[in-house]
Amino acid sequence: MLTLFPFVSHSQTRDGLVVEGQELVLTLKTESVHFDKVLVRHEPDNEESLISMIPAGKEGRLKRWTARIPVNDDQPVTHYVFKLVTGQIQWWLDARGVQQYMPGREFHFKHNAEHQPPEWVSEQVFYQIFPERFCNGNPEISVRTGEYKLSAGRRETVAKQWGEEVGGYPGTGSTEFFGGDLAGISNQLDYLQDLGITSLYLNPIFRSPSNHKYDTADYFTVDPHFGTNEEFAELSANIHSRNMKIVLDAVVNHTSTQHQWFDIADTSGKGAYHHPDSAYRDYYFFNGDKDYIGWKGVSSLPVLNFRNEQVRDHIYRGENSVLRYWLKEPYCIDGWRFDVIHMLGDGKGARNNADYVRAFRQAVKDESAQAYVLGEHFSEASQWLQGEQEDGAMNYYGFAHPARALFAGIDISHDPITLSVPEFTRWLLEARAKVPWQNQLAQLNQLDSHDTHRFLTLVGSDRARMEMASVLLFAYVGTPCLYYGTEVGMEGGQDPDNRRCFPWDTVSSSGWLPFYKQLISIRKQHPELQKGGFELLNCSEDTLVFGRKLGSGISLMAMSFSDQDVAVPVWKLGIEAGRVTSQLTEQGSIAFENGYLNLALAANRADILALNNTGE
Amino acid sequence: MLTLFPFVSHSQTRDGLVVEGQELVLTLKTESVHFDKVLVRHEPDNEESLISMIPAGKEGRLKRWTARIPVNDDQPVTHYVFKLVTGQIQWWLDARGVQQYMPGREFHFKHNAEHQPPEWVSEQVFYQIFPERFCNGNPEISVRTGEYKLSAGRRETVAKQWGEEVGGYPGTGSTEFFGGDLAGISNQLDYLQDLGITSLYLNPIFRSPSNHKYDTADYFTVDPHFGTNEEFAELSANIHSRNMKIVLDAVVNHTSTQHQWFDIADTSGKGAYHHPDSAYRDYYFFNGDKDYIGWKGVSSLPVLNFRNEQVRDHIYRGENSVLRYWLKEPYCIDGWRFDVIHMLGDGKGARNNADYVRAFRQAVKDESAQAYVLGEHFSEASQWLQGEQEDGAMNYYGFAHPARALFAGIDISHDPITLSVPEFTRWLLEARAKVPWQNQLAQLNQLDSHDTHRFLTLVGSDRARMEMASVLLFAYVGTPCLYYGTEVGMEGGQDPDNRRCFPWDTVSSSGWLPFYKQLISIRKQHPELQKGGFELLNCSEDTLVFGRKLGSGISLMAMSFSDQDVAVPVWKLGIEAGRVTSQLTEQGSIAFENGYLNLALAANRADILALNNTGE
Repeated sequence: MLTLFPFVSHSQTRDGLVVEGQELVLTLKTESVHFDKVLVRHEPDNEESLISMIPAGKEGRLKRWTARIPVNDDQPVTHYVFKLVTGQIQWWLDARGVQQYMPGREFHFKHNAEHQPPEWVSEQVFYQIFPERFCNGNPEISVRTGEYKLSAGRRETVAKQWGEEVGGYPGTGSTEFFGGDLAGISNQLDYLQDLGITSLYLNPIFRSPSNHKYDTADYFTVDPHFGTNEEFAELSANIHSRNMKIVLDAVVNHTSTQHQWFDIADTSGKGAYHHPDSAYRDYYFFNGDKDYIGWKGVSSLPVLNFRNEQVRDHIYRGENSVLRYWLKEPYCIDGWRFDVIHMLGDGKGARNNADYVRAFRQAVKDESAQAYVLGEHFSEASQWLQGEQEDGAMNYYGFAHPARALFAGIDISHDPITLSVPEFTRWLLEARAKVPWQNQLAQLNQLDSHDTHRFLTLVGSDRARMEMASVLLFAYVGTPCLYYGTEVGMEGGQDPDNRRCFPWDTVSSSGWLPFYKQLISIRKQHPELQKGGFELLNCSEDTLVFGRKLGSGISLMAMSFSDQDVAVPVWKLGIEAGRVTSQLTEQGSIAFENGYLNLALAANRADILALNNTGE
Repeated sequence: MLTLFPFVSHSQTRDGLVVEGQELVLTLKTESVHFDKVLVRHEPDNEESLISMIPAGKEGRLKRWTARIPVNDDQPVTHYVFKLVTGQIQWWLDARGVQQYMPGREFHFKHNAEHQPPEWVSEQVFYQIFPERFCNGNPEISVRTGEYKLSAGRRETVAKQWGEEVGGYPGTGSTEFFGGDLAGISNQLDYLQDLGITSLYLNPIFRSPSNHKYDTADYFTVDPHFGTNEEFAELSANIHSRNMKIVLDAVVNHTSTQHQWFDIADTSGKGAYHHPDSAYRDYYFFNGDKDYIGWKGVSSLPVLNFRNEQVRDHIYRGENSVLRYWLKEPYCIDGWRFDVIHMLGDGKGARNNADYVRAFRQAVKDESAQAYVLGEHFSEASQWLQGEQEDGAMNYYGFAHPARALFAGIDISHDPITLSVPEFTRWLLEARAKVPWQNQLAQLNQLDSHDTHRFLTLVGSDRARMEMASVLLFAYVGTPCLYYGTEVGMEGGQDPDNRRCFPWDTVSSSGWLPFYKQLISIRKQHPELQKGGFELLNCSEDTLVFGRKLGSGISLMAMSFSDQDVAVPVWKLGIEAGRVTSQLTEQGSIAFENGYLNLALAANRADILALNNTGE
């Protein structure tokens, strides 16, 4: 049956959730109608407890209610939902929205009292750099044609000119080098800072034969074709002097076959591959003489065995273990992005995975309490994002996948998918609801990466759709990350085509750059976009409008696939009258009163509007 | 948008899932239309893998598809979903049904390759007995008025005549005794067997001062007012000789204050309460001299501390620990129902709860591989039901709560709730989907218990609604359990009114008994009701029709709140033509052809129909 429930809302920002010692002070907002009961339901000791909420004043036409619940002491996460009863109906508010019966525990509001991501993460605008293709700052160290073989029996390196077309697979895709390096990144820090970027995430930079460097040969040395450890220390210091941050890629599920532990090239050495009695043999999973487990069966990526105590010591436990080493002086990185972190473990595959991820987190935080622990997950990451494992994930599941479904009509396997705006929105809300609010803010939202087609290519170079998706990226809950070159309209299909050289010679004439500069600037000017609560305001077949609110700061995101006049119920944000100003267009501000904002949305456009409250 | 997807179905019965060594052979059924892709998605090592399914013949108008996936080797549960693509749309089949985007992991089909419930559970019809009120077989041992005080300073016992009105709280509710005992149960085994009952679950029977005995004073002795250990051994043997089963209540979260470990009465003893240096002091949680933690703050129920090694030994680890003792000769019970199992733990409250529940399971299964591990959970139990903890739960969350919402319009807190049939069905499907199929079958479904109002009272003595709910109970996925007296229309409100004496003198004239005998008989005659797959066939505002199918056995459950002519798409069960026969009415059988069965449903009636296939 179609039941219309009175409006009810809860924000887990400081507007709605305050931690006082071992208690959570919760605020709920509702329409000012009569309720027979307004309750919060929580589960101390896994047992249901319902607490009546107390009226606590008004906000616009909304009524505020408050209650205190204790922090769970049997588990780090305290979860709660709200129950309202009027007449013969009841409804529940969970982290997705209103439900008609007690929602499953996975969708309850969640607060992890013991483990929270660093505050700084959601304040950033990230920029992902694939170092080999970003900028060549030191041609002296660029890989030369024929300089080495990628591995025994494989083809030799091929040097290419900056901007030349990238080769495919098969072809030179895996052997070609264009010369991007750390010096290039250093050279472009002014550019990045001018763009508005505040944090860099670099794909792997440690010694490795490949151009992507996801096959590490030495975890403690910057690849000599990228630069030196000293250069990296300088780069990091330079970044920090600009009040920027840097996150590196930790590829610890597997190594290169050229890592000294494995040492496929040197029969006379001590490596695991040639020596069954090698001290490193148990670092990997050997089934027989030269039969070992490679990542997804790829023989060039032998998988590390975390059951082995030395592997643990080397990777995260030892004082100078990989994870700790780069967090210390003089490198002082601000976090790690962990490659395929859900796959590592002991025994076979991912056994006891959670134990290791927790241990990684602990090691990282011990070394640097404010470091960012970022996981790579192409699929749902909820189980790693409850607080005690990762701070955030590369948010494919909860952002990039639904975005490509909506805007490009294609899924991650390149199968067609057709979603309406409400279905898209439900996907976003469900994915987000499973994760504690603080971790939602620390998700790294992205439209694309070195592992996907570039989004502009996915949408068939349709500027309107690319802009809509980008506006959403900068307005949505989670930390936005641009893949290098997105800001100048770079295109690219499947890897390695998505790793083209950055077109430095045409940057200044890019028609895209001003748009991204503007978006970045808007995000940075509006703390509510960084940390504000989320309120769904309009959601129809073609149209989506939501609000972000933090204290008195309110922004709206509005987009539509067709021309639509919408009445936006801004009263749900506690506002009755005021003005909104488009942040992306030159339109004058629009006044509204009586709790509704009338917007004329143009087809295939998205905008962010700043809201000024001129009276309740 | 409203997209109509071709029909697709997967059963985790032997019809759809066969385990072959370390592989699962999966069968999917779809309409016979063109698909661009039919895939199964699984996650070896937590990483997405998509496998194409192969056509494997027809069943009626349905097409069969098959694929093999490996059992996950990093975790006990293998989970999978199906993905289908046609033209520009894609859809997914998860354990709830069809979804428009990749469903969250909690709803994927799940198979636990390491831990499964005993096969016998779903073949049973359970009967829950509250021993003090079921039958007095030996008045000699009945509690007498003034025989003892329930605890120091509390009131004395009150003996009442069988059938007298039960007292309330305050009042004699907690001190009165009617004399039900084991001899009474023995005397009524013929009655129960004639009714069709195959398994008994008894509320606690061990020595305890209360009439409910949830405050155990001695885990190794049958309460003398119920009988002796020898009598229990005889009862159990008698039950087993009838090919019936018996499950007892394990109340190990807390003890009575009269347990010798606590010993509140005896200052000269060695108990924890009076002696801070007692060897048992650490068995409980003392905050100060006589300040200790009671279950939910109830001081008569001191909570056990499972961090204490001796408590673990006494309860589940030792050779003659409580859990093992009653599983052994001569008692040989068939399982344990664990009281408030989600609340126990170490430290404060439920900390490390899962570790203990897993250990309980291990101890039980070590002692008796076919024993049933049944948890009590008033709220969602999904996290205890993934296989490695419990076999099944008292299914309040996934059956009793939605049933009382639909039929009585009331929730577990006695607040009003209004649900349509589709909302009710969604609740059932979501709750069930989170649990592996084998555990779904081993859920103990019930309409009511010693902890709730009786269902007949909840529905305002409305016979039609009570019948509808009961038909659903016996047709749905999970093992049905009748609370004693339901079969003769016993009524009762809040505890202790729900614990009235069984009305033995009016049994023969009960207008209810034939109905329940019939229902029980139907369930037992149709294996598909016990273990068959579930297919939703019609679900509208007022009407619900589903099929249960196992091999060639097919039953339908049809119910409606209004007069409705429905066309039931039995072709979804692979059947085109045949006859159905009402199992509850005298109506003749109805023929159908062309894949649809036309039923004229009467308002507020439910029926189970057996389906005979007379041609595909």
